[in-house]
Amino acid sequence: MKKLIIASTSTLHGGNYLEYLLPALQDHFKNCKSLVFIPYARPGGISHDDYTKRVADFFAKLSITVKGAHEFESPAAALTDAEAVFTGGGNTFLLVSQLYKTGVMTTLEKAIQNGTPYLGSSAGSNICGLTMQTTNDMPIIYPPSFTTLGAVPFNLNPHYLDPLPDSTHMGETRETRIKEFHQFNTQPVLGLREGSWLDVKGNTILLKGDLPARLFRQNAEPEELEAGSDLSWLK
Amino acid sequence: MKKLIIASTSTLHGGNYLEYLLPALQDHFKNCKSLVFIPYARPGGISHDDYTKRVADFFAKLSITVKGAHEFESPAAALTDAEAVFTGGGNTFLLVSQLYKTGVMTTLEKAIQNGTPYLGSSAGSNICGLTMQTTNDMPIIYPPSFTTLGAVPFNLNPHYLDPLPDSTHMGETRETRIKEFHQFNTQPVLGLREGSWLDVKGNTILLKGDLPARLFRQNAEPEELEAGSDLSWLK
Repeated sequence: MKKLIIASTSTLHGGNYLEYLLPALQDHFKNCKSLVFIPYARPGGISHDDYTKRVADFFAKLSITVKGAHEFESPAAALTDAEAVFTGGGNTFLLVSQLYKTGVMTTLEKAIQNGTPYLGSSAGSNICGLTMQTTNDMPIIYPPSFTTLGAVPFNLNPHYLDPLPDSTHMGETRETRIKEFHQFNTQPVLGLREGSWLDVKGNTILLKGDLPARLFRQNAEPEELEAGSDLSWLK
Repeated sequence: MKKLIIASTSTLHGGNYLEYLLPALQDHFKNCKSLVFIPYARPGGISHDDYTKRVADFFAKLSITVKGAHEFESPAAALTDAEAVFTGGGNTFLLVSQLYKTGVMTTLEKAIQNGTPYLGSSAGSNICGLTMQTTNDMPIIYPPSFTTLGAVPFNLNPHYLDPLPDSTHMGETRETRIKEFHQFNTQPVLGLREGSWLDVKGNTILLKGDLPARLFRQNAEPEELEAGSDLSWLK
């Protein structure tokens, strides 16, 4: 049975890394002693080692030891054998490029289908959708494909940002960008605000956290989905 | 001799379409009676016809007739024969995909090198750089390449946005995104604020408008370049 936490962000403003998710993660990873961390998205260009250390420091609180995927001779095989997996945020183009280059995309998809508990934040959540095409990131690397894990049957927009009411900036709002996406793509897009996450257990998908999420569907007005909603119907 | 206006935005807050550029465009296109408009970026999903009409309405003020690239049997050939060219803003991934699909990327590059006066705004400016990898847009379409016209020997970030001082949003700032780009790419990136444009004549590149631009170079602190600066040295 699939078991995922798909979080909009790793960190809330004024909080510490993954802190707001601690109770949920204690439950999610309760039978795990070790975790493979996928550091490929490298936020701000941080090294794989430094990023993995940051994550290991957090998971020490849960008595879970962390090893970075980059530390294994075969990262793809490491994912097959992993007791638990976390993919951190950063740049989605870089992450997806590395997932394909290392063969991890395929073994990670299988591991998730086989029930390995998974945590994603930001870019690590983006890849849980059908494609990475609703990322907010810059295309700093050309990936071989935009297709991602499809662990949920729609796309995600993490760090969803409402239009700023007093903005004089003429660049597109997030909503305009997603509307453009729907000119060419049919799948729903779920805008997850910071502090929201999806709890996936088998075919059940629950919206967690205190905030509503914003749902965009092709040829329809956007809808607000209340915190706590069951999204199992969404595809 | 190359002759380009590369504008951050088509429209200033509270202004009309291309209005702030009118004096510059009167000079830029002073010997032109007709212009080919490239509508492929389709902002907000607008149709090619509607987008071309918006542009034609503006250029009527300059007594220039406008035809959309999509109206020609061979858009690529139309670019070779064009008296002047304007590429409008919208989604850069969509624009670049269409430029490759139609063969316009190649003929447009040659037309610019041969001195056909060119105007770009937003996505239409992004493609003047070496690659489209510093766009702000969503990857709604998978293009065959990120390589663009290279009409200037660096990359552009239109609609450059300074970090908001009171923001509690944890998504990456524009500066962080460009820093990530420089982990993997060496070319300079020029952040053009709304209201700024580059005036390119042969090898001379001048920064126009009232605002400074922000220059990002690999392994260096960002710099502010004053309005009016000569950027011909930049590569």
